[in-house]
Amino acid sequence: MIGNLTQNQMEPPFILSLNTAIIVGETGIETIEPARIDIEELYHYSYTMLMKYSQSFIPTLREVPADAAITSHQLMFRAGMLRKLSNGLFAYLPLGLRSFHKLEKIIREEMEAIGSLEIKPTVVVPGELWKESGRWDAMGDELLRVKNRLGGDFVISPTAEEAFTSLVRDELSSYRQLPISLYQINTKYRDEIRPRYGVMRGREFVMKDAYSYHAGEESLDETYQAMGRAYRRIFKRCGLSVIPVKADSGSMGGSGSEEFMVESAIGDNTLILCKSCGYAANVEKAGCKPDFSPRPSLEIAKAAAASTPPIEKIDTPAVKTIDELCAFLKTNAQSFIKTLIYRAVNVELDLNSAPGCAKLERRKPGPDAPEVCREAFFAVLIRGDLEVNEVKLAAALKAGGVSLAADTDVVRITGAPVGFAGPVGLSGIPVIADMTVTGLSDAVTGALAQDLHYAHVAYGRDFEPWLLTDVRTVRAGDRCPLCGGELYEKKGNELGHIFKLGYKYTKSMNVSYLDEKGESHIPVMGSYGIGLDRTLASVIEERHDADGIIWPITVAPYEVIIVPIRYDGAVKAAADRLAEDLERYGIDVLLDDRNERPGVKFKDADLLGIPFRVVVGDKNLAAEKPSVEVKRRTDKENVLVELSRAAGELAGQIKADLAKLNG
Amino acid sequence: MIGNLTQNQMEPPFILSLNTAIIVGETGIETIEPARIDIEELYHYSYTMLMKYSQSFIPTLREVPADAAITSHQLMFRAGMLRKLSNGLFAYLPLGLRSFHKLEKIIREEMEAIGSLEIKPTVVVPGELWKESGRWDAMGDELLRVKNRLGGDFVISPTAEEAFTSLVRDELSSYRQLPISLYQINTKYRDEIRPRYGVMRGREFVMKDAYSYHAGEESLDETYQAMGRAYRRIFKRCGLSVIPVKADSGSMGGSGSEEFMVESAIGDNTLILCKSCGYAANVEKAGCKPDFSPRPSLEIAKAAAASTPPIEKIDTPAVKTIDELCAFLKTNAQSFIKTLIYRAVNVELDLNSAPGCAKLERRKPGPDAPEVCREAFFAVLIRGDLEVNEVKLAAALKAGGVSLAADTDVVRITGAPVGFAGPVGLSGIPVIADMTVTGLSDAVTGALAQDLHYAHVAYGRDFEPWLLTDVRTVRAGDRCPLCGGELYEKKGNELGHIFKLGYKYTKSMNVSYLDEKGESHIPVMGSYGIGLDRTLASVIEERHDADGIIWPITVAPYEVIIVPIRYDGAVKAAADRLAEDLERYGIDVLLDDRNERPGVKFKDADLLGIPFRVVVGDKNLAAEKPSVEVKRRTDKENVLVELSRAAGELAGQIKADLAKLNG
Repeated sequence: MIGNLTQNQMEPPFILSLNTAIIVGETGIETIEPARIDIEELYHYSYTMLMKYSQSFIPTLREVPADAAITSHQLMFRAGMLRKLSNGLFAYLPLGLRSFHKLEKIIREEMEAIGSLEIKPTVVVPGELWKESGRWDAMGDELLRVKNRLGGDFVISPTAEEAFTSLVRDELSSYRQLPISLYQINTKYRDEIRPRYGVMRGREFVMKDAYSYHAGEESLDETYQAMGRAYRRIFKRCGLSVIPVKADSGSMGGSGSEEFMVESAIGDNTLILCKSCGYAANVEKAGCKPDFSPRPSLEIAKAAAASTPPIEKIDTPAVKTIDELCAFLKTNAQSFIKTLIYRAVNVELDLNSAPGCAKLERRKPGPDAPEVCREAFFAVLIRGDLEVNEVKLAAALKAGGVSLAADTDVVRITGAPVGFAGPVGLSGIPVIADMTVTGLSDAVTGALAQDLHYAHVAYGRDFEPWLLTDVRTVRAGDRCPLCGGELYEKKGNELGHIFKLGYKYTKSMNVSYLDEKGESHIPVMGSYGIGLDRTLASVIEERHDADGIIWPITVAPYEVIIVPIRYDGAVKAAADRLAEDLERYGIDVLLDDRNERPGVKFKDADLLGIPFRVVVGDKNLAAEKPSVEVKRRTDKENVLVELSRAAGELAGQIKADLAKLNG
Repeated sequence: MIGNLTQNQMEPPFILSLNTAIIVGETGIETIEPARIDIEELYHYSYTMLMKYSQSFIPTLREVPADAAITSHQLMFRAGMLRKLSNGLFAYLPLGLRSFHKLEKIIREEMEAIGSLEIKPTVVVPGELWKESGRWDAMGDELLRVKNRLGGDFVISPTAEEAFTSLVRDELSSYRQLPISLYQINTKYRDEIRPRYGVMRGREFVMKDAYSYHAGEESLDETYQAMGRAYRRIFKRCGLSVIPVKADSGSMGGSGSEEFMVESAIGDNTLILCKSCGYAANVEKAGCKPDFSPRPSLEIAKAAAASTPPIEKIDTPAVKTIDELCAFLKTNAQSFIKTLIYRAVNVELDLNSAPGCAKLERRKPGPDAPEVCREAFFAVLIRGDLEVNEVKLAAALKAGGVSLAADTDVVRITGAPVGFAGPVGLSGIPVIADMTVTGLSDAVTGALAQDLHYAHVAYGRDFEPWLLTDVRTVRAGDRCPLCGGELYEKKGNELGHIFKLGYKYTKSMNVSYLDEKGESHIPVMGSYGIGLDRTLASVIEERHDADGIIWPITVAPYEVIIVPIRYDGAVKAAADRLAEDLERYGIDVLLDDRNERPGVKFKDADLLGIPFRVVVGDKNLAAEKPSVEVKRRTDKENVLVELSRAAGELAGQIKADLAKLNG
C-alpha cells in the first residue's frame, strides 16, 4: 500500500517504525514480534501489491515449449512470464515484468549509491556518431543499421558509447565537472544471426550501461572499483553466484577489465578456475603455472641440453600429424615442438629487430595512432600436446588480428610442404616460442622438408626464438598461475562487464576539457554493462527444481501466494483479510481466487516460484486456534501458523530473507 | 530515504505515522504539527531523494537555444533537462528523467487502479504481424521499416495493436478470460518528416499504449469509460488543463473516440469550443447549429422560393472566383452556392440510386468486408462563404478518402471550364448538398458554361440534391450544436486518445474465443494512448513564467531546493541538517552546494522550477530564533520560518499540494 498512491484505503490506522511494527487495530494495540520491519527494506517497486490471480494474466503451461532448450527459457514460458513475438524477440507478460522491474530497481539503487546518474538517450541513434567513433565501419552485421525516410543513417543502439560521449562532449569544459558517471537502463538491439535460449541470447534486450569520464587514471580507477563493488552487490541481491573474472594486468596494457560470469552449460565463454584459490579467468586470457621450471635463460637451457644426443634427421614417410608421428616414433606429444605459421595484421609491436621484417609495409591507421605493420608472418612454437591461444598471441604481438597462414604462405616461408615446419634452420621469419618450449631439451620437430623430422632437438642449443612468451591455451588440470592449485574448466555466460576503455572514444570523438592551468586534455573513459534479461534468466537457471522456479525474495514477482482451498465463505473472508494484512506490511501478494482444484493451484504456485505459500482451508480455520498452512517454496512441509499471527510471522521471515540478500 | 534500500543510515530512529510525524531524535521525542504526513502520499518514484547540485549533472543555459521555437523546448534545454542527439532525437538528462519517471509512475498507478496490466513487448516488431493487419502497406513513410541481416522485415514500433493482438490471440480461448486489458510504457518511433518543437513532435518518444479485448460492446464500453476517467485523473494529477474532445455519436458509426487536448499555439489540431456549454470538438468532426432554420423538406423549400424571381442566365466575363463574382454582382458570398467536384475512393455508401453510378467498378477489399466502389465522383454544394470539411464528407460517403477532382475530371463531368460548375442542369453525377444550401432560395451558381452564371437559383425549385447532409467546416462564431452558444476556435495538441477500435485488428489477425455454448466469436477491441514526452512538455507550456518552469508538485524533479548563501560553517551545517530532515519526510531535495553567488543560485532555482525554495543564511540563523527563508516558486516574497519547524512546515505544505492534485 505504500506504493499505491491512488487509494486511501488505509484502515485501521497504523504506525510503522523501523524496529517494531505496531498495528493500531480495532482490538487495540498489538505489537508484533519478531516482525521487525524496516519500511525501506520492505518497500518494493510495484504499485499493485495485492493481485487476484483471476484478474492477472498468467498463462501457465503444463508442456515444455518445443523450442525451449534450457531451463530458464522453459520455465519463463511455462510460468507465463514470457512469450515469443519472433525469433529472438520476446514479450514480458505481467508476472515476468514484475520481476524485471524489481531487478531494474536493484540496479538503480546500486548505481545511485555510487553516484552514477541516470539519463535516457534514444534507442534509435544517429549513424553520424558511429561514423565519428569508427564503429559504423568496424562493427559487423550485428549492428542493425537503418535508413530513415530522408536517407539519414541510424543504428538501433547495441551499446551507447557514442551517444553518451557526444552528450558529455557538448557539456564538458572544465576539469571541475569531472568525473562524470552516467547510466541508462534502456532497450538494446543486437542482430544475432542465431538467437537462442530465450532471453539469454535474444535480439532485443535491456541493458544497464554506464559510462564514466575522468581527468586521470586514478579517478577512473576509483569509479571502476566502485562499479565492481556495485556489480557484486547487484548479483548478490539477486541471489546469483557470479564468478568475477579479472583481466587486470595482462594483455590489456595495464588497463582494467572484469567480467561477471555465471556458470552455464550453454555458456559462450570457457572459464578457467582454480580449485584452491580464487583465481578465475576467461580461457582467452587465462595464464597458468608451467608444469616444470621454465628456462627463460638460454644459458640454463643450453646447460640442460648438455646430455642430449646430437640433433638427428629421421625419415618419417607419409607421416604428417602429431598423432601419426607419436605412433611412428613410439613417443608422446609432449616430446614434440609444434611449429605453426601465423599471419598477423596491423602489428603494433616493434619488429625492427625481427628476422625478415625490415621491408614490411608500415602505416599509421590514424593521425595520432602508432605505426603498424599491415601484415607480418610468424612461426609459433609450442609443446606438441598444447594449443596456441590466438587472443594471447595477438596481445603479445599487439596485433589487430591473427590467423593461421594459408598453405601457400606456409610452403613459401618454410620451403617445405605443410606439416614439416620446424625451428631448426628456419630463417626470414620471427620465431615466437611459448614458455613450454623452454622445457624441451630432447624434442622432435619438423625438418623443413617432405617426410623428414629432427630428433634430439634442444631449445637454446639447436634454435633460439626471437620472442619468448606465454601463448598456450590453459586447460583443466593445468596449475593455477597464482597458487599452483589445480585448474578446472567451466562454461559460463557473461552477465556484466566493467572495462577501462581508455581514450578510444574520447579521442576519436574529440572530447576535451581544460585543466586548472587552462591546458586542454582528453578525458579517460570507462564503460560498465549488465544485461537485465540474461541476469533474470540466470537467476532461474540457478534457482529452480523439477516443479518450477524458486525465486529469491528480492526479485520474486510476488512474495506470498495465498491459496484458498475454495474461495468461498469463511475461507474467502480469511484469505481476503490475510491478503490485506500482508499488503499493509508492504508485501506483494498473489491471491489465487480461481475456481480450480487445490492440486492445480499448488502446481501453479510451485511453477511460479513464489517464495511463500499460505494455504487457507476450512479445517484449519475451524480449529480452536484458527490456523493456516505456511510453506516456503524451498521446504517440503507445511507449518501450521495461527491466522492472527500469520501476517506478522511472514513479514518477519520476508524481512530476514531480504536482509540476507540486500545486507 | 524510504526509497534508498542500500544504505541503512537511519539515525536517529524515527516513527512515521499516518497522521503525525514523530521524530525520536537525540533531544527526545518531538511531535511536529501541522505536518500530518501520509507515507503513501509522500512516497515518490526516485531512489535518491537528496541530491547535491554539484554531484548532479544539470547543465543550465542562460541563452535560448537557436532552434527552440516554443517555451517548453526552450525551458527543457535551459533547465538542463534535455539535450538533442539529432533532429527529433532527444536525450533526457538526470533532471528531466526524474520528472519523466514521476509521470510514468502516475500513469502506472492509474492504469493499475483500473485493472490494466503492464507487459513489455519489444520495440523492434516483426513485419509479419503488420502484414497480417494490413498496416505494413497502409501506413505511409512515417512507419520506419527495417530489414535485419537475414532479410527479415521489421518495424520500429509506432503503436502496438499488432504486437498486443498477436499475444492475446495466442493465449485466448474462452470467454472466461475476457475482458483483457494490457498496457506498456515503451519507446515508440515515428519517422516524422519535419520533427520540431522539441519533444512535442519528436521522432522517438515514449507512449503509454493500452489495448483491451472484450466479449461484447458493453464490456468494451466499461473499459473505455474507465480509461477516460483514468486519463482525466492522470492529467489532473499533472496539473494540466486538458480539453476532452468526444466524437461519440458521429461519423464513427456509433463507436467511441475521445481525444485529450491541450491548448497550444503550435497545435496540430483546431478545436471548436462552446463559450456556453462544455461542447468541444475537433474541427474535423465539429458540428454546429445552422444560422437559420434548415429546410430539409423540399416542399418547405419550394414554398420559400415562391417569391423568388425566375432563374436567369447572366454573363460574367473573365470572372472565376467567388470574390470576383461578389464584386461583379455587388452581392456577398453568402448568396452563392459553391459547387465542388470531389473524387472519392472505396465508397461503402450504397450508390445504387445515385445518378451515373450504376456501372461503377465495385469490389470487396477483404473476404468479410462490404462491397465498395473503387472510385466515384460527387458534386458537393455549399454556401459560398463556407468550406467543405473533407473528414465529414468522407464519413458521409463512408469513403476511404476524398479529394478535389482533377481539372480534367471537372471539365469532363460539368462540360464547362473549372469555375463554372453548378447544380442546375448537372446530370450523371450524384449531387450532395450541405445543410446550409437548403437556406438559399435566391442564389447565384455557375451555369455549366464559360463566363456564365445563374442568378435567382432556388433550392428545391431549380435543383434537388441526391443527398442532403452536414459537410461544412465549423468556424469561430458559429452556433454550438448542443446549446446554440457561440463557438470559438483554439489550436490544440493531442496528449491522449481513447478509441473503440472495433474488430479491425481482431478480425484481420484472426483472434477468436469460444462462448459458453462453445461457439466461436471475434473479440472487440479498444486502444488507449498517452504521449509521455508531449505531456511533460505541455505541463511546462502551461506552467512557467519569464524566469523558468513552475512545476506542479506531482512531477517536479525535486520538491524543495535548499540554497545556502554560502555552503560553509554554520550555514552548511544547518542546510545539511534541514536536507536530511526533509529527506526523512520522504521529500525530494536538491541542495545547491555550489560555490556560486546567491544571485546565480536563485536564477537557477527559478529556471529549474522547484516548487519550494529554502534560503539558509548567516543572518537569519544568528537570530534569536534561528530561521530560514521559505518561498514558493509561485510567490514573490519569502516567509521567515523557524529552522526547527521548517521541515515539518514544508512537509505539511507539500502534502496539501499533493492532495490537491492527486485527491
